[in-house]
Amino acid sequence: MKGSAEIICVGTELLLGEILNSNAQYLAQQLAQLGIPHYYQTVVGDNVTRLQQAVAIACGRSHLLIFTGGLGPTPDDLTTETLAGFFKAPLSQRPEILQDIRQKFSQRGRVMSDNNRKQALLPEGAAVLPNPVGSAPGMIWQPRAELLLMTFPGVPSEMKAMWHTTAVGYLKHQGWIGSAIYSRTLRFWGISESALAEKVAPFFEQENPTVAPYASRGEVRLRISAKTDSEVAAEQMIQPVEAAIRAIAGADCFGADEDTLASVVGQLLRLRSQTLAVAESCTGGGLGQALTVIPGSSDYFLGGIIAYDNAVKKKILQVEAEALDTQGAVSDIVAQQMAVGVKSQLSTDWGISITGIAGPGGGSSDKPVGLVYIGLAAADGSIRSYEYRFSHERGRDWVRHVSVCTALDLLRRRFL
Amino acid sequence: MKGSAEIICVGTELLLGEILNSNAQYLAQQLAQLGIPHYYQTVVGDNVTRLQQAVAIACGRSHLLIFTGGLGPTPDDLTTETLAGFFKAPLSQRPEILQDIRQKFSQRGRVMSDNNRKQALLPEGAAVLPNPVGSAPGMIWQPRAELLLMTFPGVPSEMKAMWHTTAVGYLKHQGWIGSAIYSRTLRFWGISESALAEKVAPFFEQENPTVAPYASRGEVRLRISAKTDSEVAAEQMIQPVEAAIRAIAGADCFGADEDTLASVVGQLLRLRSQTLAVAESCTGGGLGQALTVIPGSSDYFLGGIIAYDNAVKKKILQVEAEALDTQGAVSDIVAQQMAVGVKSQLSTDWGISITGIAGPGGGSSDKPVGLVYIGLAAADGSIRSYEYRFSHERGRDWVRHVSVCTALDLLRRRFL
Repeated sequence: MKGSAEIICVGTELLLGEILNSNAQYLAQQLAQLGIPHYYQTVVGDNVTRLQQAVAIACGRSHLLIFTGGLGPTPDDLTTETLAGFFKAPLSQRPEILQDIRQKFSQRGRVMSDNNRKQALLPEGAAVLPNPVGSAPGMIWQPRAELLLMTFPGVPSEMKAMWHTTAVGYLKHQGWIGSAIYSRTLRFWGISESALAEKVAPFFEQENPTVAPYASRGEVRLRISAKTDSEVAAEQMIQPVEAAIRAIAGADCFGADEDTLASVVGQLLRLRSQTLAVAESCTGGGLGQALTVIPGSSDYFLGGIIAYDNAVKKKILQVEAEALDTQGAVSDIVAQQMAVGVKSQLSTDWGISITGIAGPGGGSSDKPVGLVYIGLAAADGSIRSYEYRFSHERGRDWVRHVSVCTALDLLRRRFL
Repeated sequence: MKGSAEIICVGTELLLGEILNSNAQYLAQQLAQLGIPHYYQTVVGDNVTRLQQAVAIACGRSHLLIFTGGLGPTPDDLTTETLAGFFKAPLSQRPEILQDIRQKFSQRGRVMSDNNRKQALLPEGAAVLPNPVGSAPGMIWQPRAELLLMTFPGVPSEMKAMWHTTAVGYLKHQGWIGSAIYSRTLRFWGISESALAEKVAPFFEQENPTVAPYASRGEVRLRISAKTDSEVAAEQMIQPVEAAIRAIAGADCFGADEDTLASVVGQLLRLRSQTLAVAESCTGGGLGQALTVIPGSSDYFLGGIIAYDNAVKKKILQVEAEALDTQGAVSDIVAQQMAVGVKSQLSTDWGISITGIAGPGGGSSDKPVGLVYIGLAAADGSIRSYEYRFSHERGRDWVRHVSVCTALDLLRRRFL
């Protein structure tokens, strides 16, 4: 291992927020997998002075500078010439690049424009980093001892192809690959980040593997990361920590890595050879949508009724008019009748329902936005409903999202 | 205008590539709209020393530092204390924050954990930047002359709410807003980015307003941006360009800015006082979900049937067993019968259906993954179906997503 990397993304479109910086995420993942430490990312516009200043700072703190963007044929593409200027190396024309660009154009039935000539200029001493996909090649350049530069175009597909085809092999060959980071992410629902953090606090202190929490849309995650040189060794380091955390967290931990609430519910239904139907009001189909994200979900998910209007609740789900009139559509009794109705109509083992007030309108002091009832008609014939008061400040999408997740989680816990 | 801004995103999860830095894009767009120049973005991990170094660099080149991330309750959330340390300001407990956090917990029926206490600490002299949504507040702090700091949590919904509710008003009031960029985004469905670009190519050459294309998940957008000092002047610059592009694009342009296919379909139904029901197979509820994203959609959307299993198609939608047996569930005739069935069962003016092969399994040479039929039972009694062959290489989520959008677009075009 030769030092740490820094990702420098060049492009005014990033500073204007016109595109999402997916290149930084991709390269960050790659560096983590290869075990090359990476402490900073910088985004800078198409501006010579500011790019030079960013390079000066990066040279002082990192040893591998990975640039994306600014390699195109237009005048605002200036990464190569700025780097050449900064390290005081003359640019030289590379006939093999020109030849390659000309060929790519003619393959598409086009003529190379004069603009593209500048893409064949590289600083003296730099090697070509070939672009198997597009016209702009990058470079691999060691302008001084203990400093390696790599440049890539901003187009993600080209950058990725060049990274895989050439850069990874070069870094391996040159001894850049250290011990890699392997990680497992444990996933939790039904517990807040701070409550979980308190329960597993001692793990945050340990060094290798490390444990770090984060939260996303109501879900909490703990990432266990081991720095080592083989997957087998990583597994041996991660496994006992995972087991200890799972023992502490109990049912709040619903899975790891690629697991989702929907995939876990699906596995549990499949294990039991049981089927499920959904009856949705305020989520409007979101629960069915979430369940059918999973390929093969037709094995256990038969379908559902989107009963957005009360007439549908009555006619298709056989919810009693009296329950709707006296208790309202958002109530325990209606949630229960919806679950029973869909279970019976679709002849499934389980029926689950959601009825609530997603907002922004429709709330009252008695029944505020965020009030949601979930009904569960179980395979054993039992019927229950659950009341939730989700945060209305987070808005309609949030209420609908947590309603769907909570319904899945409720079902999951019933199976445990 | 008081100088330039820098966005500093704090979080090891960004350096590991675990999340996409959508916060940087959002803030960059906001700064551009407000006319606040912005030349650098920095990403740094949850590490005191490196964060301090990043702050030292940023102070030397920018005047408004906008931080996201590191405000949570766990030990690796250290943005506030690192900034306090860097500017040598003692931290003080803010009772009003503690009170607010406690209240938010109790509203959700939870007890505040001890961890959350640190979220009530701010450097002396800093003002609270309230968080209307989550527990972590940020701060607005001028630790020295000509330097303003603002901190936000990393959770995008919280950051955005705080930005809109407080930060924008503060920046306006303090004289940070320069000559702003106003833009309108025209939105298109049913035309490729390159085909649209060819049609409107001359507009890409003009200077103010500029026109730039981008594409996202099957939708194409054109952004018209005017740099000027008032909204009225911007409207006068944008309007003729918008009108000219709309005239060229015709029905492929479905709306602008906040419009979505679902909101446009909703407006058209509401105008006609007509109602809609959906019958979904491969999308599993996604069409209903998309329609009910729109607040007030209960005015025209009554509900639907998720007929994932053929038994549901037969029993609830009255699809004929013979059609299923001879033509298969993914066929013109079944799509038509599903649309008719849901229209009749739910007593609506319109019925729309989707049946297809989302993959990855279930395809054949005859009926490959990506084959989708959309059925439309119209208010005038006419029944039609449409066949699509979406790109199976892009996977299950893509096929389901474009199926939902195409169904909405079909309905929209029928109304024009």
